[in-house]
Amino acid sequence: MIGFNKDDLAQEYWGRIKNITGELVMLPKDSSDILTHLSATDCLLVKLGATIDKETMDNAPNLKYIGMFGTGYGRIDTEYAASKGIIACNIAGYSNEAVAEFAFAIILEHIRALERGKKQAREGNYSESSFFNVYEIKSKKFGVIGLGKIGSRIAEIALGFGADVRYWSRARKEEYEAKGIKHQDIDSVLKESDFLSLNLTQNKETENFLNEERIQKIKLGAVVINLAPMELVDIDSLANRLEKNDIIFILDHSDEMTPEQLNRLKKYKNCIIYPPIAYTTKEATFEKQKMFVANLENFLKGSTTNKVN
Amino acid sequence: MIGFNKDDLAQEYWGRIKNITGELVMLPKDSSDILTHLSATDCLLVKLGATIDKETMDNAPNLKYIGMFGTGYGRIDTEYAASKGIIACNIAGYSNEAVAEFAFAIILEHIRALERGKKQAREGNYSESSFFNVYEIKSKKFGVIGLGKIGSRIAEIALGFGADVRYWSRARKEEYEAKGIKHQDIDSVLKESDFLSLNLTQNKETENFLNEERIQKIKLGAVVINLAPMELVDIDSLANRLEKNDIIFILDHSDEMTPEQLNRLKKYKNCIIYPPIAYTTKEATFEKQKMFVANLENFLKGSTTNKVN
Repeated sequence: MIGFNKDDLAQEYWGRIKNITGELVMLPKDSSDILTHLSATDCLLVKLGATIDKETMDNAPNLKYIGMFGTGYGRIDTEYAASKGIIACNIAGYSNEAVAEFAFAIILEHIRALERGKKQAREGNYSESSFFNVYEIKSKKFGVIGLGKIGSRIAEIALGFGADVRYWSRARKEEYEAKGIKHQDIDSVLKESDFLSLNLTQNKETENFLNEERIQKIKLGAVVINLAPMELVDIDSLANRLEKNDIIFILDHSDEMTPEQLNRLKKYKNCIIYPPIAYTTKEATFEKQKMFVANLENFLKGSTTNKVN
Repeated sequence: MIGFNKDDLAQEYWGRIKNITGELVMLPKDSSDILTHLSATDCLLVKLGATIDKETMDNAPNLKYIGMFGTGYGRIDTEYAASKGIIACNIAGYSNEAVAEFAFAIILEHIRALERGKKQAREGNYSESSFFNVYEIKSKKFGVIGLGKIGSRIAEIALGFGADVRYWSRARKEEYEAKGIKHQDIDSVLKESDFLSLNLTQNKETENFLNEERIQKIKLGAVVINLAPMELVDIDSLANRLEKNDIIFILDHSDEMTPEQLNRLKKYKNCIIYPPIAYTTKEATFEKQKMFVANLENFLKGSTTNKVN
């Protein structure tokens, strides 16, 4: 196991892993010791941040399985692994619900001025007189860009609030259209939505999806949220639009941005930045551990799950 | 018109009132001048806080209509008005949606630690490491006490989040049960709910509804919200339970509480106090004005709406 701490798994799951393996070796993710341990290793359990490259695999003649404790696998050469018959599995989707609920948490926090409300009451001022500019989700146009597992849950919850929900996605999703979530072309979603949630998967095609042209099309006064990587957004163009002070932008992937990018966006009061806390619910953490250990158990039973290569 | 300011109605509605009346007299709510103006008055439009008692009505021989710009009418002797053939109308329900959405705003704000998250990011700390104790609404037991117009919208939105929604109300509501909102006895709602929303109408029967016995039954760790008047809650008993630090209580009718009551509850970190901002949305304000002017217009057409006496 590379890069794990005791706290990463609940007692129950440590127990299940110990039941499986002949020998359990735990190494820090930057250990120079890794190669010396690999000759006898059958299964490698890897926490995000550890690099598993050709050299590592060439030093592991018995390696059959790489289990990732996370969704992203950019630091693992999964193609080379496949060429050597090594199966790599990740865990995905464990935080869909956590992220979808967080979308409404941050939208409502903003449109109902909660931070200011709590502060004012704490200071002993119980007047509502400066809060008549707050507003509702109901009947507003709510646009979801990317109707995958998270985007579709956001769209469903928005329906519960009585919003007029539209989406754009690479593929039409008839099961959601049947629920009243309307398909629109991307320009209409940008131009018409009062609330806009960016839920595309990050890949080469979607990088800088919100480019200068698209950012300028966003409706005046819209609340735009991005709980996906900020690689989807062209930061220069976003700063240009924020400068006009006619949209609100809320994000939580701040840990993956450079200090320069963050300082640039922090200048704008209409850009609200959270730590990456959309995915950190207890329920998601529980689900993550469960999927991780289940992947290993399923591999050993010959019924591999969540294979990525 | 008693107690109104220019800002109370949008231009459109001032225009509609001026079209209706022969003469429009505006008086401050504490005006000693009121009685001198009443002899010629047919319709009296009253803002919350103004008192219309027997003496006032006895001085208004032509009075036929009292229109209240609000829901409560405790300061108007509506029975005496009825005895003189004076119709009194209020406006109600204009902020149902505003209040229902606010319920989710304050619940999510708390369970996702948003205030702390924003503050930490502002200070330049983008680590999620102290946020793994946050949690979700989905699959939790969500109890609504009082399934009226606001309570039923809260229950419906909770269904959208995938909560297990239960209610207790004086009367069974089959149309909501058909949607999957389960009826339970009050003790079970108190004992089992992870989230608990108090949505009873305030009257003599419901005052101190959350008494010592009931407050002690609330589930350990529950988040309890009250967006109705705090007369529903016995403050001593609430303080006793808050002292144990095993529930969270969130309220917004702080303006109606005494300084002593507020200072008592403010001591507890597990009691979150907002100004009365659940009802202040733009949409509710618009609806309020619309209903107020429509009541007057309907009365003049002989098709009275929202009569309270």
